[in-house]
Parts: sequence; C-alpha cells; structure tokens
Amino acid sequence: MLLTLERVAELLEGLEETIIFKLIDRAQFRVNEIAYVPGKSGFDGEADRSLFVLRLRRQEEMDALFGRFCVPEERPFTTPLPASKRAVTLPDTALRIDEPDSASVTKAILQAYLDLLPTLCAAGDDGQYGSSVEHDVYALQALSRRIHFGSFHVAESKYRGDPRGYERLIRNGDRDGLLARLTRRDVEEAIIERVRHKVGHAQARVNRSVRKYVEPDLVTGFYRDHVIPLTKESEVRYLMKRKPDV
Amino acid sequence: MLLTLERVAELLEGLEETIIFKLIDRAQFRVNEIAYVPGKSGFDGEADRSLFVLRLRRQEEMDALFGRFCVPEERPFTTPLPASKRAVTLPDTALRIDEPDSASVTKAILQAYLDLLPTLCAAGDDGQYGSSVEHDVYALQALSRRIHFGSFHVAESKYRGDPRGYERLIRNGDRDGLLARLTRRDVEEAIIERVRHKVGHAQARVNRSVRKYVEPDLVTGFYRDHVIPLTKESEVRYLMKRKPDV
Repeated sequence: MLLTLERVAELLEGLEETIIFKLIDRAQFRVNEIAYVPGKSGFDGEADRSLFVLRLRRQEEMDALFGRFCVPEERPFTTPLPASKRAVTLPDTALRIDEPDSASVTKAILQAYLDLLPTLCAAGDDGQYGSSVEHDVYALQALSRRIHFGSFHVAESKYRGDPRGYERLIRNGDRDGLLARLTRRDVEEAIIERVRHKVGHAQARVNRSVRKYVEPDLVTGFYRDHVIPLTKESEVRYLMKRKPDV
Repeated sequence: MLLTLERVAELLEGLEETIIFKLIDRAQFRVNEIAYVPGKSGFDGEADRSLFVLRLRRQEEMDALFGRFCVPEERPFTTPLPASKRAVTLPDTALRIDEPDSASVTKAILQAYLDLLPTLCAAGDDGQYGSSVEHDVYALQALSRRIHFGSFHVAESKYRGDPRGYERLIRNGDRDGLLARLTRRDVEEAIIERVRHKVGHAQARVNRSVRKYVEPDLVTGFYRDHVIPLTKESEVRYLMKRKPDV
C-alpha cells in the first residue's frame, strides 16, 4: 500500500516526540567522555572498543535476533549482524528497494549525534557511563527510524507524483537536481517550528535544580542541520537505487 | 554520603519525566496481546516463553554484563542473571543494605504494569510486537529505578531522622506501624498533581490523528495505586532488612 505524502508527514510528526523524549533523557547525564574512548570500556575481554561502541554493538546484535532490521526503516549502525531468529511479518509497502542498507545514512547520523553530545549534555563526568550509552543507543535508533522511514516513503511518494521528472534526473545521475526537486522549504520550516514548541512543552514543568533543561534551539538546530538534510540525502540514495516498476 | 529527604524527593521528581515519556512511547503501539502469550514468540528454539518475557530476559542478561544491577536501585525482573563483565564504580551511599534484592518489588511492578497495558494502549493488534516489548522493557526499567531509588533512600533518611521510633517498630516486626510512620499524604498528593500536569504538558502539541494521547488520569492513577504504594512496600522491606549501624 502506498502511503500518501500527507500520511507520511503525519507519521513523521508522530515520531518527533519520541526523538525529543530520548534526547532529553540522554541530557540528564553528563557528557562522560571516557565512555567514548576506545579501550576504556572497562569490559572484560574488550581491549579495543569504547563502552559506547560496545553497547551499540551488543544492543544491535540482540535486536537483530529479534528481527528489528527486517523492517526497512530500522537501519542499523553496526555491521555485520546476526540473522533474525524471529519470523517478522512486514506490512505490505509500496517501496521499490531491495537493499534498504544501500540508502542508509546511519554513518552520518552517528557522527552528527556524537557531535551533538557536548552541547546536549552538561560538561564533565558523573560516573553514569552505563546509563549514558544506553540512552545514546535509544536516541540513535529513534533517529534512524525517523530518517529512513521519512526518506523511503517520501521519496517513493514524490516519485509516483512525477515519475517522468524523477526518471530523467535519475538517468542523468543528477544528485543536485534530485535534491532540489525533493526540497520543500515551507514544509521544513513548519517541522522546525513544531519541534521547537514540543521541546518547550515537554519540559514545561521541569524542576531545573534536578533535571537539565534542553534548549529548544538545540533540538531544532539538530533537525535543521542533520535530521532534515540526512533524510533528503537518503531520499536521493533511494531514488538512485530504485527498482523499475514492473 | 546520606541524601537528605529533600534531595531524594527532588531526584525522584526528576525521574518522573522519564517514566512519563516511556509510558507515552509504549502507548503508541496497540496492546498486541499475542506478544504476551507463552509459546507465541515466533523465536527459533524458544517454545515456551512469550516474546515479552524473552525480550525482558535477553535485555536484562545483556544489561547484567554491562553492570546495571550492581547499582542498588536498578533491580532486575529476571533471575538468574550473569555476573557483570564491567568494573562499575558506585557512588558512596549511606544505604545500610547488603542484598538490595531482599527489598525488591519487581514482581509486583511487573504485574501492575501488565495490568496497565490494556488501558494504556489502544486495543487490538498492529503487528508491531518487537517495538511493543522493547518499550515495555524500557518502561519497566524506569519504574524499577524510580521505585527502588525512592524506597532505599527515603527509608534510610527517615530512619536516621527517628532511629528509636523505627527501631521499635522493626524489632516488633510491625509492618503496619512502619507503613503508617513512613506515610506522608501531603507529599503523595503533591506528586500526583505534578505528574498530572507533566503528562498534559508533554503531549500539548500532539497530533492526535497519528499519536495516541495518554490521559493524565491514567498515569496519576498508576502512581497513586502502584508507584507510591510499591515504593512504601519496598521501604518497609528495606527497614526490616536494615543492617545495624556500626
């Protein structure tokens, strides 16, 4: 079943709170830099990895067994991963892509997220490394889901609204042309304004003496500079890999 | 270091958003009853357990390796669990308990949570079993952390404010007397009112056509009937097991 652009936009809107909640939860711990230093995990038998990398890998290995990555929009950050041990029944989608990983932007999501941490969290070390990296993983997974769900369904829906226009650009390998055709500034601005209000409301009753308040601008900046551009980058990749209609 | 009652109350207040966010996130999926039926996990080689039980167990087994349950307030739902593979440095607390599991109420938390699901979530089945049980686990862990952090530190702090009064009740095994002495109705009412406002604010900008709105009364009822009574039950257990001062 093809999702209309309006329906995709609504579903993406519904994922905003989840991303906001998870970022705010991570911000309750300090940066805890040592958790990101290779070889400093303090984990028996893991001499090379950071605690963060280890946690992300172990969580994704477990999630893989439960079938998470059978879902097109759930793109992992780790490779390789074990096969699913669970039969997952996927909803029928109209997506035209065989290898969703070929349109994955998780590498860039990871880098953008790690770059955000020093401004999202208070500086310093509170010793809560385990909780910090646990929340990192949940935030990253929410971002990956939102970005890839958006990119796959938006790209497919826009393509179907203008197959000849898109085909020409795809044939010419015109990435800039695709990006320009996919872009709707007014929609992007509306998303950013909505996110701004949601971040404020979610923390309206926060006791700032015990809970770190996350500035709405921080989250909207992250949406503007990363979530939205990476969604579009993934849309371009999706279109370049799109299977011909049968 | 002994935490004052005021400081404990503040830290508990700071955990409210986390619980609220996680309950709201779970509510975005339907009840998905089959995920709770033993033998219906669809997981290779797991003939007996439900998907929910399997997910909880696997997550806690992984968390145990990372040292989560070395922290007194992080009480697990699963037993037995592997030993930590990570050296965890705990903050110095003034708690007087050797075996925090002896004051654990996770069995009752689990039951209360499962009883909440049919009202928290929309009825029916959306096929998103993996996401549902994933969010169950996060919500349960947030509840366990809040309830046990509260009970251990509140009990210790109240004991120190009135050691003779509490000693008498402990010696007599007077659980009802302990419960009465620990209870502060005005504080409980203030918590409930605060939670009510937070649930409303967190969803103030929700688009109800794509995101389920969780009624504040549902969460406050859960606090009133379960979170607060289970915290007090765990306080009583803590006091009955409290080690003598040295």
